[in-house]
Amino acid sequence: MVVETKISQFDSIALDSGATLMPVEIAWESYGQLNAEKSNAILVTHAFTGDAHAAGISHDTGKPGWWDNMIGPGKAFDTDRYFVICSNVLGGCQGTTGPACTNPATGKPYGKAFPVITIRDMVRLQRMLVSSLGITRLLCVAGGSMGGMQALEWAVSFPEMLLSCIPIATTWRHSAQQIAFNEVGRQAIMADPDWNEGDYYDTKPPARGLAVARMVGHITYMSDESMREKFGRRLREKDKFGFDFGVDFEVESYLRYRGSQFVSRFDANSYLYITKAEDYFDLANGTGALVDAFRTVQTRFLVISFTSDWLYPSYQSQEIVRVLRKLNGDVAYCDLPSNYGHDAFLVDVAEQTELVRGFLSSTARSARAV
Amino acid sequence: MVVETKISQFDSIALDSGATLMPVEIAWESYGQLNAEKSNAILVTHAFTGDAHAAGISHDTGKPGWWDNMIGPGKAFDTDRYFVICSNVLGGCQGTTGPACTNPATGKPYGKAFPVITIRDMVRLQRMLVSSLGITRLLCVAGGSMGGMQALEWAVSFPEMLLSCIPIATTWRHSAQQIAFNEVGRQAIMADPDWNEGDYYDTKPPARGLAVARMVGHITYMSDESMREKFGRRLREKDKFGFDFGVDFEVESYLRYRGSQFVSRFDANSYLYITKAEDYFDLANGTGALVDAFRTVQTRFLVISFTSDWLYPSYQSQEIVRVLRKLNGDVAYCDLPSNYGHDAFLVDVAEQTELVRGFLSSTARSARAV
Repeated sequence: MVVETKISQFDSIALDSGATLMPVEIAWESYGQLNAEKSNAILVTHAFTGDAHAAGISHDTGKPGWWDNMIGPGKAFDTDRYFVICSNVLGGCQGTTGPACTNPATGKPYGKAFPVITIRDMVRLQRMLVSSLGITRLLCVAGGSMGGMQALEWAVSFPEMLLSCIPIATTWRHSAQQIAFNEVGRQAIMADPDWNEGDYYDTKPPARGLAVARMVGHITYMSDESMREKFGRRLREKDKFGFDFGVDFEVESYLRYRGSQFVSRFDANSYLYITKAEDYFDLANGTGALVDAFRTVQTRFLVISFTSDWLYPSYQSQEIVRVLRKLNGDVAYCDLPSNYGHDAFLVDVAEQTELVRGFLSSTARSARAV
Repeated sequence: MVVETKISQFDSIALDSGATLMPVEIAWESYGQLNAEKSNAILVTHAFTGDAHAAGISHDTGKPGWWDNMIGPGKAFDTDRYFVICSNVLGGCQGTTGPACTNPATGKPYGKAFPVITIRDMVRLQRMLVSSLGITRLLCVAGGSMGGMQALEWAVSFPEMLLSCIPIATTWRHSAQQIAFNEVGRQAIMADPDWNEGDYYDTKPPARGLAVARMVGHITYMSDESMREKFGRRLREKDKFGFDFGVDFEVESYLRYRGSQFVSRFDANSYLYITKAEDYFDLANGTGALVDAFRTVQTRFLVISFTSDWLYPSYQSQEIVRVLRKLNGDVAYCDLPSNYGHDAFLVDVAEQTELVRGFLSSTARSARAV
């Protein structure tokens, strides 16, 4: 299944910050067919560095989508039954308007002139896309990590527009530790002289800082155990061990490779803007009263966490579940056993597939949607 | 109690790498009195960024030592009974020979010409210091984190020279995750153009890279819970929240402060050399057979870990304990409850004090040493 990324443009979007972007573009893909009643649409929301290419083979790059093991004919998000949409987030760098795009006011890239964005802003733009397709109600919004934040925000901001919500390996607000890891990444980028206050599009990007930021991220996406299984203390070249100052262990070489590879596909300013959006995200708006945020929500929930995820630990999902249950909400929860850490939602999909498939079927049945 | 740091010089030291340093200096302090039999000496070994100033008030800086809550009259390491020594590690930057010192071959700082060092090299130099004081057997070697690695190495390399060993919050070899965190710190430093291949002593140090490295470290020293208790999501300046691009949360400002503060007291090249020594450390020399390393060891052990320490998780201490028990070794073990993460061995000292005091007393009694 070869897929093409489409671009939709809208005249403007008003942001939480008070700023307005005009125009605004959003990159998106879709898989499966929208039925005549337009009742079988599912929005899949991507994690921090993801993009609109969630499934199938990209027409441009030839690569499979980031959730291709979950989306397709007969898969968890069964494209024989559902019409699945995925779009790149606002502030991103994979087709949707972000800091690397041209600022119409200056004719140059926005850089640091790009307005601060929030998860709610991302969701607002997704809603514009969904509405432009004539869809008034989504069967489901589903995503992991920052994608889960967007799914939760959908349920709270537009409760009438989705029947169900699947937040995976996520949180209703970042902890101090999560903010701290993001801040280290930002500092690594801003410490790179090539960052140049965000103005580097005519010269060279802050590749070294961005690579270091990515390395930190990669450690937090894996678990102690999955790193041990993957690398242990295996040496890269046995002869060199002990008395060289470079790469000794395979894990070092892997991190350097992933760091440098990332630089070619991701914009450093997007890194700054999107991590800030994650850190600002707080479904309770600083009140601590998550129960108030969910009070009017009628959506069905399937909440999934993973036992070895220490970046978005299970207790954060359980906080959400507890509040929804207190409100007599329709919520299913599963803490799936996995060794893969936070990455589990991308790679350890057998049990996740069963859960999602069953949940979507029952949602569709109860709404007579499909 | 005002203390002065002393410097001892030795003609040369042969290193694991095959290189020889000549001369070599070691900075050290001592607390309490060495008895006539020279049987009451305890060596305390410091963690990664520590120094020789473990207790009392520094004559030079006016600051208390890094383990002043554990060392002193009536404290865990009771200086009314014991003679406590602490020295700065080889490769460090607080008085002991390290990459910032003058290379006699060139008259310039070593920089990257400094030989690769190991934990065993550090211990070898400590042994030279201890012997130079006329001490043939230590009552105990004790330390946390990298200090614990040195304590373990003492027990294995010089089993006849210590009666007991207290490795705290440590491991017998770094896991892939621990190597990965160290590697991120190294990459942050080496990504800073001011690092200049280690040759920066005539110009300015790689302050930005070193600060980022320190920030990563700080996150790993704390726990999710201790960060939440200390910072939560508290904002630095409420007005600025949400729509500025700088410091929003207290945890960000704390990390930036600790990062920049560190630069003034620590040498970036020492950071590189010492983290490599940690990563190379493997008490089983790559065989995986820890039992062989401990086979000839007669030392008594008190092994301590902390429940919330995710950088040096308790299971790593338990691996050591299991092997020692298999050998019918004399080993006491305690996994102390604490919320402070890896930092617990420095700050959460009430229970640790009781354990250490009792263990040292019984060691001294059984040896009729004090």
